[in-house]
Amino acid sequence: MNMYDIIMKKRNGGALGKEEIEYFIRGYVAGEIPDYQVSALMMAIYFRGMTREETLQLTLSMAHSGDMLDLSKIRGIKVDKHSTGGVGDKTSLALTPMVAACGIPVAKMSGRGLGHTGGTIDKLESFPGFTTGLGEERFIRNVNDIGIAIIGQTADLAPADKKLYALRDVTATVDNMSLIASSIMSKKLAAGADAIVLDVKTGSGAFMKDEKDAVALAEEMVDIGRQAGRNTIAVVSDMDQPLGFAVGNALEVKEAIDTLCGNGPEDFLELCMTLGSCMLMAGGKAEREDQARRMLQEVIENGSALDKFARFIEAQGGDPAAVYNTDLLPQASIVEPVASPCDGYIAHIACDEVGMASLLLGGGRQTKDAEIDLSVGFVLRAKVGDLVRAGEPLAVLYANDKGKAAEAKKRFLSAFHFSEEPVERRKLIRRIMMEK
Amino acid sequence: MNMYDIIMKKRNGGALGKEEIEYFIRGYVAGEIPDYQVSALMMAIYFRGMTREETLQLTLSMAHSGDMLDLSKIRGIKVDKHSTGGVGDKTSLALTPMVAACGIPVAKMSGRGLGHTGGTIDKLESFPGFTTGLGEERFIRNVNDIGIAIIGQTADLAPADKKLYALRDVTATVDNMSLIASSIMSKKLAAGADAIVLDVKTGSGAFMKDEKDAVALAEEMVDIGRQAGRNTIAVVSDMDQPLGFAVGNALEVKEAIDTLCGNGPEDFLELCMTLGSCMLMAGGKAEREDQARRMLQEVIENGSALDKFARFIEAQGGDPAAVYNTDLLPQASIVEPVASPCDGYIAHIACDEVGMASLLLGGGRQTKDAEIDLSVGFVLRAKVGDLVRAGEPLAVLYANDKGKAAEAKKRFLSAFHFSEEPVERRKLIRRIMMEK
Repeated sequence: MNMYDIIMKKRNGGALGKEEIEYFIRGYVAGEIPDYQVSALMMAIYFRGMTREETLQLTLSMAHSGDMLDLSKIRGIKVDKHSTGGVGDKTSLALTPMVAACGIPVAKMSGRGLGHTGGTIDKLESFPGFTTGLGEERFIRNVNDIGIAIIGQTADLAPADKKLYALRDVTATVDNMSLIASSIMSKKLAAGADAIVLDVKTGSGAFMKDEKDAVALAEEMVDIGRQAGRNTIAVVSDMDQPLGFAVGNALEVKEAIDTLCGNGPEDFLELCMTLGSCMLMAGGKAEREDQARRMLQEVIENGSALDKFARFIEAQGGDPAAVYNTDLLPQASIVEPVASPCDGYIAHIACDEVGMASLLLGGGRQTKDAEIDLSVGFVLRAKVGDLVRAGEPLAVLYANDKGKAAEAKKRFLSAFHFSEEPVERRKLIRRIMMEK
Repeated sequence: MNMYDIIMKKRNGGALGKEEIEYFIRGYVAGEIPDYQVSALMMAIYFRGMTREETLQLTLSMAHSGDMLDLSKIRGIKVDKHSTGGVGDKTSLALTPMVAACGIPVAKMSGRGLGHTGGTIDKLESFPGFTTGLGEERFIRNVNDIGIAIIGQTADLAPADKKLYALRDVTATVDNMSLIASSIMSKKLAAGADAIVLDVKTGSGAFMKDEKDAVALAEEMVDIGRQAGRNTIAVVSDMDQPLGFAVGNALEVKEAIDTLCGNGPEDFLELCMTLGSCMLMAGGKAEREDQARRMLQEVIENGSALDKFARFIEAQGGDPAAVYNTDLLPQASIVEPVASPCDGYIAHIACDEVGMASLLLGGGRQTKDAEIDLSVGFVLRAKVGDLVRAGEPLAVLYANDKGKAAEAKKRFLSAFHFSEEPVERRKLIRRIMMEK
C-alpha cells in the first residue's frame, strides 16, 4: 500500500477501503506521509466525494488517532451537544443547566473561540473567578454531584483531525460534506458521550448556506453516529439572522440567564426547548417530545435550571451572585442606541456583518492570543419581519471605545436590509433527524 | 494576491490570470509557497483543466524561471526536436546527422534516461571515449564547424518545471494535457531554438494511449509555440509497438547507423524522413515536403549523413571507427533467439513489457545512479501484422547474464499477442500539425 496509489484511486473516482484510510491517517499523524500528498488527496475528495462507508472509516480512524475519553465513572447516559456555530449562539449556556436539571449529566471539554465572539469558556469567564482548570478527578466528581462540569481541552482528542483541518484550511478543501462530517464526528466520538445531539445551522450566517446542504450534512453525521454505536440526533436550525437578540460575551450570558428565568427571546427559547427535548429523549429521560418539553418548561418555571447554573458557576470558582443579579457581569462604559436609517420591514440581517461589528468592538479574537473585551457587543431590538421607523433603535450598542463604537456601528448598520413590503418571519427549526 | 485564493478560484472553475500564475510560479521556486498548496492546485487543475491562455502563461512563467539559453552565436536557424518518448526510440541518433548534413545546426542540451533504456547521452557512450563535457565555447564552435554538438545539462533550464514535475509525480497529477504541454514547452522555450519539431507518440507504449489525446496535446503545444514566437510543428506517430527493431542502447546505435547507411527499418526510416522534412521546412532549408524528403534521401545515399555522424562522434572524443564498423560497439556475450510459442499473425506487441524485459537485462536505470549495460537488449524479427510459425524467432536477445536472460525472455514473450486471422499493419505517421 502506498499514498500515491491511494491518491490515484480517489482521483479516478474509486472508493477507499478501511485499510487504505487507516494507512493514510496513521501515516499522516506519524509524519510519514507528507502534507503535499494529503492536500492532493483532499482536493481529489473535494471533487470525487466519499461514500458513507468511506466517511465512517475516516471518522473512526481520526477518532482513534488520539485519546478516546472514558466517561464511565460518570453515572447515567452522557449526552453531548454540538453546534456548527453562528452569530449569537449562546445555546450551551442555557441548555446545559436545563437538561442537567432534568437529570442528564453534562461533562464537557471545551475550547476558546476564534472569531466574532469568544467560545463558551470565554463567555463563562464573565463570572469573575470562573476557571476550567479542574483536573480530571474533580471534573468527574462535579458532574456526579452537581450535574455539570466543563474543563478546557486537556486530552489529545482526534489529533488527525486537527492536523487535517489545518491543512484543509489553507488548501481550499474545507467545504466538502464528508470531510466536514468526519471532522465534527471524530471529535465527538473521541469525547466519549453515549449520545450526541447536533445543531446544524443553515443560512447566510452558517457554514452551510443552503438548507439542502445542511440537511445532507446532518444526515451524514446521524448516519456516522448510528454506525459508531452512538445514539445521534440532528436538528437543522436557521442562522440567516443572529440567534436571539444578544451578540457579545457577557451580553449573551445575560440573555441565557434571562432565558433560564423564563424571559428569553422566543427563537432562542424554542431552540433550547427543541435541542433539550432531543437530549432528554436520547438520554432516556423522556419518551416523547411533548413530555420532554413539559419537563424543560418545569425546570425553568420552578427555578431549578437557574439554580443548577448557579451551583455550576460556584463549583468552578465563579461568583454565583451574578447569576441572580446580572448587573454584576462585566459592563460596558458606552451604551447607545443604533437608530434605523429608514422606515421599513427588516428583510435580512447579514450575520457576517453583525459578527464583524462585534469583532471590531473587541468582543472576539482575530489572532489566537488576542484579549477579549467581554462587556461589548449588540443587543438587537428588531429582527427579520419587524416593521421599524426611521430613528427607532435597531439595537443597543455596548462599547468601551468611542472610535471603535463609531466604526462598529457603521458595520452593524450595513448588515440590515429593508423592504417596503411586509416580510415573512423566518422559521427557526427546519428539521429534526434521528436514527430509525 | 495569495495562494489560497488562487487554489479556490481554480477549484471553483475559474481561469487564472497572468499575474496569478506568475505569482504562484515565482513564489513556488523561491520556496515561499509550500508544496502542499501547490499540490492542491495541481489536483484542482487536473479536474478543472486550464484554458489555452492559462497554459501559455504557465509555460512562459516556467520557461523564465531559470536560464534562457542564448544560441545567437550559432549561425542559421536552430531547430530543436523533442519526442514524448517510447520503446526503441533512437530517432535523435539518426535524425540529427541527417538534418545537420542538410545544413540545419543541431545544438542540443541532453539528459540521461530513467527507464527501460538510457537517454541519448547514454546511448552515445556506446562509442568509447565519447563525452558531453565540452564547455560552452567549444559547444558553440563545434556546432558552427561540424553542425552538431550535444552537451549535458549545464544551464538551469526551467527549474519551476523541475520542481513542479517532481511534485506532480508523487501526487497523481501528472496526466493533465495542459500541465504536460506546459512542462515540455517550458523547457523547449528555455533551450533557445528558433523552431521546434515535436514527435508526439500515441498508443499503448506512449504516455498518451488515445490518439485523440495525443492530437490534443500536439495542438496545445503547437499553439503555445506559435504564441511564444517559435515556429512549431508536431507529428503524431504510432507507439503501439516498439519503433524499428532494436531495443537497447548499443543495439539502437547500430540500428541508427544502419539507417544512415540506407539499411534502416522501414518504419523508423519513415519517421526520420517525416520529422526531418519538418525540421528542414522549419529551418528554411526546404519549401515543400517532397523537396525536403529528396534532400534527406540524398544525404543518406551520398554518405554525408553518416560522415556527419562520425565527425560529431570524433569531435566529442568518441572513436569514429565504430561508426563504420559497428562490431566495435559494446557486444553482449549471450546472443540467442526468442522463439515464437505458436503459429499466428502478431496482433499486438505490448511496449511496456518489451521495455521491462530490456530493463531486466540491465539496459535501463531503475534508480538515478544505477549503471547501464549498454550491450544488452532485443532486436525484433517480426512486428504487428507479420505471420510467424511456432519455433521461428520473434527476436534475438542480447544479454550478459544467464539468469537475467531467462527472466527477460519470459517477460518479453508476454508482450506478444497472436491472432489466427490476418492483422492489419499499423500506420506509423498519424498526423502532422503546423501553425497556419
